[in-house]
Amino acid sequence: MLRITIFNEFIHERTNESVRKLYPQGLHATIAAGLKQHLGTESPVRFATLDEPQHGLSTQVLAETDVLLWWGHAGHERVEDEIVTRVQDRVLAGMGLVVLHSGHASKIFRRLMGTTCMLRWREAAEKERVWCVDPSHPIAEGLGDECFEIAASEMYGEHFDIPAPDELIFVSWFEGGEVFRSGCTFRRGKGKIFYFSPGHETFPIYHHPQVQRIIANGTRWAAPSGGLYLGQGRNIEPALSPIAARHQVDASLHRAK
Amino acid sequence: MLRITIFNEFIHERTNESVRKLYPQGLHATIAAGLKQHLGTESPVRFATLDEPQHGLSTQVLAETDVLLWWGHAGHERVEDEIVTRVQDRVLAGMGLVVLHSGHASKIFRRLMGTTCMLRWREAAEKERVWCVDPSHPIAEGLGDECFEIAASEMYGEHFDIPAPDELIFVSWFEGGEVFRSGCTFRRGKGKIFYFSPGHETFPIYHHPQVQRIIANGTRWAAPSGGLYLGQGRNIEPALSPIAARHQVDASLHRAK
Amino acid sequence: MLRITIFNEFIHERTNESVRKLYPQGLHATIAAGLKQHLGTESPVRFATLDEPQHGLSTQVLAETDVLLWWGHAGHERVEDEIVTRVQDRVLAGMGLVVLHSGHASKIFRRLMGTTCMLRWREAAEKERVWCVDPSHPIAEGLGDECFEIAASEMYGEHFDIPAPDELIFVSWFEGGEVFRSGCTFRRGKGKIFYFSPGHETFPIYHHPQVQRIIANGTRWAAPSGGLYLGQGRNIEPALSPIAARHQVDASLHRAK
Amino acid sequence: MLRITIFNEFIHERTNESVRKLYPQGLHATIAAGLKQHLGTESPVRFATLDEPQHGLSTQVLAETDVLLWWGHAGHERVEDEIVTRVQDRVLAGMGLVVLHSGHASKIFRRLMGTTCMLRWREAAEKERVWCVDPSHPIAEGLGDECFEIAASEMYGEHFDIPAPDELIFVSWFEGGEVFRSGCTFRRGKGKIFYFSPGHETFPIYHHPQVQRIIANGTRWAAPSGGLYLGQGRNIEPALSPIAARHQVDASLHRAK
Repeated sequence: MLRITIFNEFIHERTNESVRKLYPQGLHATIAAGLKQHLGTESPVRFATLDEPQHGLSTQVLAETDVLLWWGHAGHERVEDEIVTRVQDRVLAGMGLVVLHSGHASKIFRRLMGTTCMLRWREAAEKERVWCVDPSHPIAEGLGDECFEIAASEMYGEHFDIPAPDELIFVSWFEGGEVFRSGCTFRRGKGKIFYFSPGHETFPIYHHPQVQRIIANGTRWAAPSGGLYLGQGRNIEPALSPIAARHQVDASLHRAK
Repeated sequence: MLRITIFNEFIHERTNESVRKLYPQGLHATIAAGLKQHLGTESPVRFATLDEPQHGLSTQVLAETDVLLWWGHAGHERVEDEIVTRVQDRVLAGMGLVVLHSGHASKIFRRLMGTTCMLRWREAAEKERVWCVDPSHPIAEGLGDECFEIAASEMYGEHFDIPAPDELIFVSWFEGGEVFRSGCTFRRGKGKIFYFSPGHETFPIYHHPQVQRIIANGTRWAAPSGGLYLGQGRNIEPALSPIAARHQVDASLHRAK
Repeated sequence: MLRITIFNEFIHERTNESVRKLYPQGLHATIAAGLKQHLGTESPVRFATLDEPQHGLSTQVLAETDVLLWWGHAGHERVEDEIVTRVQDRVLAGMGLVVLHSGHASKIFRRLMGTTCMLRWREAAEKERVWCVDPSHPIAEGLGDECFEIAASEMYGEHFDIPAPDELIFVSWFEGGEVFRSGCTFRRGKGKIFYFSPGHETFPIYHHPQVQRIIANGTRWAAPSGGLYLGQGRNIEPALSPIAARHQVDASLHRAK
Repeated sequence: MLRITIFNEFIHERTNESVRKLYPQGLHATIAAGLKQHLGTESPVRFATLDEPQHGLSTQVLAETDVLLWWGHAGHERVEDEIVTRVQDRVLAGMGLVVLHSGHASKIFRRLMGTTCMLRWREAAEKERVWCVDPSHPIAEGLGDECFEIAASEMYGEHFDIPAPDELIFVSWFEGGEVFRSGCTFRRGKGKIFYFSPGHETFPIYHHPQVQRIIANGTRWAAPSGGLYLGQGRNIEPALSPIAARHQVDASLHRAK
C-alpha cells in the first residue's frame, strides 16, 4: 500500500479546449487511472492543484504521502517558495518524487538538482521512440520490448542540464533528429526521485499503456525504504572507540551547527 | 595557467589567538602557499573575504576566475543570497569549485547539492587516516601511497547527506570510530566541484604536505574544459531531420520558457 | 517467492574443529537460517558445494535459481571454468548474485568485474564497525541505526580493486586503522550483484542479526526484474524509420557476429 | 608526451578494394594522422597488427605504451588469450585503452567489462548525429557545438550490454530510428578506458575532423595518472593502530592468497 499524491497545476485543462478534450478531468485524473490499473485500488491517490490553499500541499498532506507526482508547466513561478522548501524537506526525509515532463523546469526539481534543468524543445507532433538502456531496472518491469513508440510527441533534446543521473533507464529518439535522457533516477537525502519526460498536455501520451506502466513502476520504485534514522548533523561525544591523546582544543571555536 | 580565487570568511584568525598562531596571515594565505608550490607561480591567486563588499566576489572577479576555493564556517549565514546565486551561475557556466572542510555547510555547496550536506562531527584532536579508493584519479596524483595520516583532526562522520558523488576518491578513518567520504567530485552544469574534508582552523592541517598536494590536484582537475556552447533551453525550429506528418498543435499552448 | 541457491565450498567446516564449532552444519546452513527468518519459509533454499558433480550447479539448478549466494575461499581455483562461464551467463540473463566475504577472490566475481578484486587483509579478531552511507537503499531496510558493530572480524582494507560500484551502501571501519567499501552493488547484463564483506569462517559473523538482515535484504534486492527481451546482438533490418539515401555497401564486409 | 600504440587487425584493408580506397595505408595510419594533428608530433605512435608475432603486443611494447587504441572486427577470435591477459594486466596497472567501433566485441573489451558487450546494428549508410551529454568533460574539449553529423554511418543501437559507464559523454541518434551510448568511460584497476563507437571500415569516418578530435581527446584523457602503488592484495601486519584484544585465531585457516 502506497499513499500517493498527484500535484497538477491544472491550468491548461481549464483554459484550452483541445487539452480539455484529451484530459477532461485533468491530467491528474488520467495519471491516477493509470496508477490504479497497475498498483491496484488499495493505494489511495490524492490530488493537489495550484489554486488550492498551499497548493494542496499542507504539512499534513505531505506527512501522509509516500510518493508525490509532479506535473507543472505554465504555473511554475506561481508555486510559493515556502511550499517548495517543505516538499524538498519531505523528499530529503524519505518521500518519493516522480517528476513528469515539463516538471523539469519546476522549482522543486531545480532545487533538488542544483542546476538549471534546461533543455531544447520543439512542439511538432513528431514521433518519439523510448529506448531502454537498463533492462534489469524495476522501472522497466513488464515492458516486454527494448523500445516503444509515441506517435506524436513534444521533442525534448540534449543538452539536458541535470547532474549525471544515478541511473539512466531510458533514452529517447526523436524524428526531427534529437536524443534525450528521458528516464533518470536520483537520490537526495533519503528520498528517491524519478524523472520521466514523455507526456504533454496537447498529446494523449498519459493514455499510452507503456507510459502508464512506467509511471506506475516509477511510483513503486520511489516508495520510501530504509528506515534509518537520518537526523541533522550532530556532535558525537563521547567517541565510540578510545582516542589515545586529545590535544587541547580552544572551546571558543566549537561550532553551533 | 589557472586564475584562482580563494574565498575565506577570515573570522577565526582575527578573533582567536590559537588560530592566529597556526595561520597568522589567514587560512587563505597558507592554502595559497600550498597551491603555488604545486601549480607554480604563473597561476595568479586572488583572495576574497566575507567583510569585503560583495564578499570580494564581484561579477568581474568571478568572470576572471577559473577555479574558486571556498572556506567558511562561522559566517555561512552572513553570505548574501545574491552572491550565492552569482557563484552558482558561474559554476554552472564552467568555473571550478573546491569546497574545503566546514564549507560542506556553506550556502553555495548546499545550493549545488540540493541536500542538507549535514554530517556528524567531534573536535577531539584525534588521528585521521585518509585512504585513497580511486588510485588512478588525477586528484590522487603523486601521493605515492594509498594512505596518509593526520595526527590531530576534527572528526567528520557518516552519514554525510550529499548526493552520491560522481567519483569517490578518498575515505577517512577516525580513531574514535567513524568513517567519512572525505574526497568527492561532482559535476553541475559545466562546472566541476571537488569537496575535500581534511582541514580545520585549530589544527595545522593546511600545512600538511599531502593535504596541500591534494588541494592543488583538485584545483587543477576542476579547471574549466569542454568549451561547448551550453545555452539556456530554447525552441529548436526547424527540425534537423524531416518530420513526416505534423499534427495540428494549438499554438496558444506554446510555452515561453 | 524467491528460489535461492547457496553455493558454499564447504571445506573449512570439514577440516577445522574451530570452524565446525561455529558452523556445525556448514556456513550455508547458518546463512540459510538467516534468510528464512527474514524472507519467510515459502522461498525454497537449495545448497550447492564444491565436491558435488558440477559443484552442484547444473544447468537445471541454475535455471531454477532466482538468486545465487556465493561463499568460497580455499577452493577458488578448484571451481571449473566451464561452471564459471555457466554462472556468468545466467547472471547476465538476469539471475541475482550475492557474493560474500572471501568470495571477492572467486573466479565468478573476478570474471564479472574484469579486475583483480584484490584487497589488504589481517586476521586479528579486531573490531569492525559497518557504516551505512546510503540510508534510503532497500538493502539498508530495517537496520534502524547508521552503524553496527562486529566484535571480532577479519580486516579487509582498501585499496579494493573493483570497478567503481553502481551503488556504495556500506563502508567499514577497522580497529587497526583501515576502511573498506564493504557493501557494494553492481549490474551486469540483466543481473544484479551485491557484494558484502563481513563474514568469516573463524568468527560467528553469520550469526549476527544485522548481518543476517543485510544478506536477506541483498538477496531480495538481487531478484530478477525487468523482463525485457535482451538477446544477443543482431542485425536490424529493415530500419524502423525511413532512411533517405542508402550508400552502396560492399556486402563482403558484412559481419557475422 | 604520450607513448601511443594503435592495434589494428588490418584485415579488411588488405582484402577489400573499397576499404583500401578509403584507408590505403590501413585504418591505423589514418587514426595516427588524426592523433598527430591534435597531440603534436612529439608523441610517438607505434602500430601493432594481428599477423605480427604476439600481434605486435610484446611485453616490452606494452611496457612502453601509455595508451593503446584497439580496432578489430573480423579477427577478434584470432587474438590469443595470452595476449588478451597481458593487455588486461597492463590496463589494470595503469595503461589507458581506447576501444573503437567494432572493438566492442573484442576479447579484451569483453574481458574488462564482464558482459557480452553485444548490441544491434545495421549497415545502411544512414545518417548519425552524435550528441554530447557531458559538455564539461575533457573528451568533449573543443567540439564547439553540442552535436555533429556523420553523413553515412553503420548503425549501432541499444540495448548495448555494458556495465553502466562511469561517465556517459556521447549519445548517438540514427536516421533509421535507434539511439546508442556512443561515448563512454570506464575505470578498471588503475587504467582508464574510453569506448567510442563512430568509425567503420567502409565509411570515411576516421577522416571526420570531429571524430579525430574526440579520439585524440580520449587518448589524452586515458593517459596514466595517479602514481599510487597498487599492489596485489597482501596481509597487513602489524596493524597501523593498536587493537585492544586479539582473539585466538586458528593459524591453519590463514589463507595463502
